[in-house]
Amino acid sequence: MSTTPRTMPGVLELLPLEQAAFQRMVETVRRVYELHGFVPIETPVLELTEVLLTKTGGETERQVYFAQSTGSLEQGREPDLAMRFDLTVPLARYVAEHQNELVFPFRRYQIQRVYRGEAPQRGRFREFYQADIDIIGLGELPVTADAECPAVIHHVFSELAIGSFTVRVNNRKLVQGVLTDLDVDPEAHAAVLREIDKLDKRGPEYVQQALGGFGLSSAATARLLDFVAYSSAGIDAALRHLETLTAPNELLALGRSELITVFETLQGLGVDDGAVVLDCSIARGLDYYTGTVFETVLDDHPAIGSICSGGRYDDLAGMYTNTHLPGVGISIGLTRLFWQLREVGLIQTGQSPTVAFITLFEEADRTHAAALATSLRNAGVSALISDAPRRLGKQLKYADRTGIRFAIIAGSDERSRGVVTVKDLIDESQSEVPVEGLAAFFQSRGTR
Amino acid sequence: MSTTPRTMPGVLELLPLEQAAFQRMVETVRRVYELHGFVPIETPVLELTEVLLTKTGGETERQVYFAQSTGSLEQGREPDLAMRFDLTVPLARYVAEHQNELVFPFRRYQIQRVYRGEAPQRGRFREFYQADIDIIGLGELPVTADAECPAVIHHVFSELAIGSFTVRVNNRKLVQGVLTDLDVDPEAHAAVLREIDKLDKRGPEYVQQALGGFGLSSAATARLLDFVAYSSAGIDAALRHLETLTAPNELLALGRSELITVFETLQGLGVDDGAVVLDCSIARGLDYYTGTVFETVLDDHPAIGSICSGGRYDDLAGMYTNTHLPGVGISIGLTRLFWQLREVGLIQTGQSPTVAFITLFEEADRTHAAALATSLRNAGVSALISDAPRRLGKQLKYADRTGIRFAIIAGSDERSRGVVTVKDLIDESQSEVPVEGLAAFFQSRGTR
Repeated sequence: MSTTPRTMPGVLELLPLEQAAFQRMVETVRRVYELHGFVPIETPVLELTEVLLTKTGGETERQVYFAQSTGSLEQGREPDLAMRFDLTVPLARYVAEHQNELVFPFRRYQIQRVYRGEAPQRGRFREFYQADIDIIGLGELPVTADAECPAVIHHVFSELAIGSFTVRVNNRKLVQGVLTDLDVDPEAHAAVLREIDKLDKRGPEYVQQALGGFGLSSAATARLLDFVAYSSAGIDAALRHLETLTAPNELLALGRSELITVFETLQGLGVDDGAVVLDCSIARGLDYYTGTVFETVLDDHPAIGSICSGGRYDDLAGMYTNTHLPGVGISIGLTRLFWQLREVGLIQTGQSPTVAFITLFEEADRTHAAALATSLRNAGVSALISDAPRRLGKQLKYADRTGIRFAIIAGSDERSRGVVTVKDLIDESQSEVPVEGLAAFFQSRGTR
Repeated sequence: MSTTPRTMPGVLELLPLEQAAFQRMVETVRRVYELHGFVPIETPVLELTEVLLTKTGGETERQVYFAQSTGSLEQGREPDLAMRFDLTVPLARYVAEHQNELVFPFRRYQIQRVYRGEAPQRGRFREFYQADIDIIGLGELPVTADAECPAVIHHVFSELAIGSFTVRVNNRKLVQGVLTDLDVDPEAHAAVLREIDKLDKRGPEYVQQALGGFGLSSAATARLLDFVAYSSAGIDAALRHLETLTAPNELLALGRSELITVFETLQGLGVDDGAVVLDCSIARGLDYYTGTVFETVLDDHPAIGSICSGGRYDDLAGMYTNTHLPGVGISIGLTRLFWQLREVGLIQTGQSPTVAFITLFEEADRTHAAALATSLRNAGVSALISDAPRRLGKQLKYADRTGIRFAIIAGSDERSRGVVTVKDLIDESQSEVPVEGLAAFFQSRGTR
């Protein structure tokens, strides 16, 4: 022993039962993404530096991890590889590189880890999972595609069963239309939107003051803040509100009509239970977005912030190709979400993926136990045989501590009668089950 | 457009339908690992260099990728992070670090990518998936645990349905017992085993010559080669062979008795169809292994080499802890396996995870289509609506090119009768299905 075993700061390494819970979350997200017609891709963690970092400067770039092999390091070379810091730039590279082999609209999901060399702090991670979907059009993409994102978000968070949530929808054109109406310099629109995006975190006073810096009169600022203060109770109310909006310019008219299409499409998809709303304050900080934008909050945990965000963008991969690729997408930060849900006690970490633990009284029982295990596994029920014959209490403790719910006990008496005793380690009940009905016993309990 | 989009050499980036096939392979491996009572863990890609590289020198270490953040690079520091090159060292670190929170025997599976800065060459990858299982004991681990590995391998490769395969089992103590009997210096045992391990690749003449270098007489060499030439037809034959072996020393006796336990346990687990054999030539190159060793070959594709290997080791984490942690495990190199199977045409890449494609004649159909899509998704059937009303032929072509098997057509006539037409794009059949029976129609076809 010479080295203290430890991870680098800023990573979330999970114990096995936590990892199993995380895995269930990933599987749910993947399943819902697939139910909505998205197909998987994965990209390498390492990209060529000159390909990954096409934009100069910026916060994101300073947080990049660079990599090089031993050989390159020894030769004193500069690292020519970098680790992806999100899934969007790799998507752009992927679509541009493979555009002749892909079919458009291209609907991909991607669930992989990304890397950021941030200063470690509570709840911030240097390595974390993102789970993204995007729909990419070739030259054009109907605005009905935008409606798919809140529908998927709604489905994912309903399935994850982590409490009530709200998907906030808006359209940057709508607010930009108001800014145009208020004679704000179009060059300043992006900066104004970034200030409006801070409403949630910094409050209206801060934003009011910041907007003054853009030459807005106090009356104009008041009108703007009044406009973005609107949040609907659901889709019906959103549509009624949008119909009352006057459209003094094309931008506002376009934003309004896009939002109407999005909300009507969502109604068709049955997403109409009040969990999807129009929130005119949602702007997203990124200039990248050009139309519909999304955020998602847990109603009982607003402090967590947005757990799933995204929007419509005009061109995915301008840095790699002249092909015009408009798209729309969302991203869930799974690691951070898991960590936050665990903090507030919304993650169940007691359940092993293993359903049945088969005890041994003596080593000679192993053949019988093995036959049981094999028949259970062949029926899709996960099973495990005790490593050795030990005191029964010790074996049951092993099963319990590893999160296995059911223990199977088969003494010579039971074996002679063709039954086993199944002990439920959660409710402490026990029942005698015929060997030939054992798999069905577990299957009927919905366990895998 | 300024940058050519491309990946670094030596990575296998898949197109969506290939990725879906790869994903099915991963899910099968994961499911079988869980059926056998293994629980997931994941470790960070980046480890502290001093923790990851505890052993000095060696081929593996020269292939490591080192990483550092922008800040560290700018300050001219040496990289203090490294990317994992296998899943075994991170497992050792994990078990040593969390030993007080784990329950032993600790049965973990881990399916993650690893990184090696190798010179790129056909079929060798710098980033690739490994899928490992290990059983780690605290202080001791019964040899019956060793039998679980071939049982899992057998189950995995049966489920993957990639043709007939053979799991070759041996025990290093057996051969070392013969070496002891032949008066080979114990210090030279490991080196001799490495030569024997080359039998498959270099042939008996090469090995015969190499063994001469260890002072073995030609009679002794002949006896050794004769001993390792044995390969059984199955488990019964293996047990009969083992019973005939004389054991002139304890090492040979121990190797023999361990192998008998392994094969008898395998019989109990029902793994007795000739696909698991005793092969006395299997030695594995790594000195790390101390007892049972495994290799797996595809019978029709011997040139591929071992697709799943592993064995018993005496102590997992001696570099991190004084706790004695014996274990046994196997590893499948999934990326390489997938690539090789694709090369020989054993991978089906035509099938999208999306089952149903819903066509549109006009935009007004979207509400009806959305209701269909939502009811299918709620029943667990993946469905996708055409992005826009286009010529029917064009829509069917989209479905076909994206690997979606079924297209749903619902004109006004069909809608008035409460039915839809389902077109099977593979066998080109079509049938009329009542809307309320649509989900069941797809479920009965075993599609997801």
